Amino acid sequence: MGDWQEITGGVTAARGYKAAGITAGLKPSRLPDLALILSDVDAIAAGVFTTSHVKAACVDYCRQRLQAKHSARVILCNAGQANAATGSQGVKDALETVDLLAKELRISPEAILLASTGVIGQRIKMDALRRGIPKLVAALAEDGSDAAAGAIMTTDLVTKSIALETSINDRPVRIGGIAKGSGMIHPNMATMLAFVTCDAAVSSTLWQQMLTRAADRSFNSITVDGDTSTNDSLIALANGESRTPAITEMGAEAEKLEAMLTAVCQHLARAIARDGEGATCLVEVKVTGAPDETAARQIAKTIAGSSLVKSAIFGRDPNWGRIAGAAGRAGVPFEQENLQIKLGNFLLFENGQPLPFDKASVSAYLKQAAAGAYMKEDTVLISVTVGNGNGTGKAWGCDLSYDYVRINAEYTT
Amino acid sequence: MGDWQEITGGVTAARGYKAAGITAGLKPSRLPDLALILSDVDAIAAGVFTTSHVKAACVDYCRQRLQAKHSARVILCNAGQANAATGSQGVKDALETVDLLAKELRISPEAILLASTGVIGQRIKMDALRRGIPKLVAALAEDGSDAAAGAIMTTDLVTKSIALETSINDRPVRIGGIAKGSGMIHPNMATMLAFVTCDAAVSSTLWQQMLTRAADRSFNSITVDGDTSTNDSLIALANGESRTPAITEMGAEAEKLEAMLTAVCQHLARAIARDGEGATCLVEVKVTGAPDETAARQIAKTIAGSSLVKSAIFGRDPNWGRIAGAAGRAGVPFEQENLQIKLGNFLLFENGQPLPFDKASVSAYLKQAAAGAYMKEDTVLISVTVGNGNGTGKAWGCDLSYDYVRINAEYTT
Repeated sequence: MGDWQEITGGVTAARGYKAAGITAGLKPSRLPDLALILSDVDAIAAGVFTTSHVKAACVDYCRQRLQAKHSARVILCNAGQANAATGSQGVKDALETVDLLAKELRISPEAILLASTGVIGQRIKMDALRRGIPKLVAALAEDGSDAAAGAIMTTDLVTKSIALETSINDRPVRIGGIAKGSGMIHPNMATMLAFVTCDAAVSSTLWQQMLTRAADRSFNSITVDGDTSTNDSLIALANGESRTPAITEMGAEAEKLEAMLTAVCQHLARAIARDGEGATCLVEVKVTGAPDETAARQIAKTIAGSSLVKSAIFGRDPNWGRIAGAAGRAGVPFEQENLQIKLGNFLLFENGQPLPFDKASVSAYLKQAAAGAYMKEDTVLISVTVGNGNGTGKAWGCDLSYDYVRINAEYTT
Repeated sequence: MGDWQEITGGVTAARGYKAAGITAGLKPSRLPDLALILSDVDAIAAGVFTTSHVKAACVDYCRQRLQAKHSARVILCNAGQANAATGSQGVKDALETVDLLAKELRISPEAILLASTGVIGQRIKMDALRRGIPKLVAALAEDGSDAAAGAIMTTDLVTKSIALETSINDRPVRIGGIAKGSGMIHPNMATMLAFVTCDAAVSSTLWQQMLTRAADRSFNSITVDGDTSTNDSLIALANGESRTPAITEMGAEAEKLEAMLTAVCQHLARAIARDGEGATCLVEVKVTGAPDETAARQIAKTIAGSSLVKSAIFGRDPNWGRIAGAAGRAGVPFEQENLQIKLGNFLLFENGQPLPFDKASVSAYLKQAAAGAYMKEDTVLISVTVGNGNGTGKAWGCDLSYDYVRINAEYTT
């Protein structure tokens, strides 16, 4: 663990933030569907967005906004309709949403960032949204994080939230985050969303660099079913309300802040993987000995994403052959003779050859590691060494169960 | 269809070939497990092998053999043990196998190519193999293709075989092929194998180039579960016994031969996809309008390999959103406004937006296209246009069913 402690409060744990979540009537279910995060003052803003070439209006909007100006005060998120593949009308709806909220909050439209999640090809229900915005603003509260975390959910089974605190210059600095998963239970329903708040003072260039690296080590290292959404967005605000000196270049304090930001993102990413559709357990793959971190992560992601590995873990089967096979096809060259595979603490494969092992003991480990209570830290750990390089990387995933197929096949559009 | 006709005979349809398949006792099931293909004369030989960095002894052996000498007379294939991840002893076993067979056939060891399929990490049962080789050679026959096709199977439900005939210089030229699928029912059991025989006379450089392109348009364009095996091998012999003039450069005759070779490979590849574990139907994805063929195929493969698309097809659900999502994340840039999606003849998405469609009719199409009798040509056809480019590409896959999970989870090592 790092040099920080876990605290309560989610995105409102950091100073100078309020949040809200309400039911505006966008979802047919009448569950909460509109979330707002507000910084009391202008905050440095950074974002990482889907790399898909089919993307939502809000993604285009945020990318352009953050290119023009590296600060913001507000993140508005609706659930129910993804506003993706909705053409020019979808763009108009996004702009109208920004204007409505700016008027209600009496701030500049430029201070607002947007996210949407829900059914692709559906416009936001603008009547419900228009009626909802005043109610949403009225609900803003210093303990509003859980309400916001609930309102961004679609098919998630649980909310995902975390807050950490460290000390910089003897003053507390906090980072909080909420997220929703890549659950795709509903047809055309997508999206990994994460919103992070921080009260440190940090330069916009550095904050964006930190966020990009943290995303690579967290959200970009999880795989539920390999599909990337049209709406995936990670937005992070840093408002300086901790009153600590501005961090403008890498150094001990910047590293401390980045490590805590990475920990927040990894917590949320693990929670998303654990909540993957039909998942019965969380799987962590750690790769060492690769030429560099990127190569290590690529091998880890290939293993975590392999349908054969995922099926074997669902069957609690110590199938080292499928792990070796996935490692071999990850696109990173290595000498088979250097390959080593461990499940938990059990060494199954070394020097390019399988080792004899007590199958009952390894299966017992798998059952125990997979049996962790929902959202606990229990994890099936796969450790793979591919050589003598310095590159280390991790990836997270879940097993592949009957329920994944049921959820995704039996729902019809 | 091309300028050829389908004939019977598999790999022994081409002149100058014999084949055999026997039970040597390598498989616990006592089903046939040893196959041999022999050309009466030295044949030009080409191969395409797994790109995995974890690979079998036979793959290393064949690669080195074909680099040193571009001809061969024999393909020997055992099923039961993959002889992958078996270290230096595995290499010794492969070399001993070659020597034994060379003595039995009274030919040079250099004329022999090897393939293995079965359990990774297991050596070939050499006692059974030694006893089997004389029996195998004694069984060689001009109608031995079906026996060979049966003996290379592992978890395949049906044999895969094809032969086509065309005319070059008014003389018949034939290409035949047999294959086995990527079924991974058994733990650590892998491997896509295909063996092709041809009686044309063709230069070794041209034959290898033709085979590489044909593999890209067939075996490299199918996806069952995204996993690549340690043993994947495609080997093609061309022995000149058609007595047609040698084809040494590209031109009308070379194109005719390559088109027929590609058709043979595509037939076998489609049969493998249709026989994917738990598959209930074959899915063909055709992408047009891409910058080039490679880009088109990349999009097609991403769609065919998407777990969400595969689950939707298992549910017979016209879920254009998942197809659009997979196209968007394939890594090929395109303008969303140019995206068009069809299921069969039904246009579902155009100009970046979904179209209204009669859901009952499209679902009926899906049910009908998926209901084709096993191994028939019936196919669920997904057509995607991404722009105005000339690049066209196809990929094949199957749906994702409960049985896939059952097969891969419930079997334990």
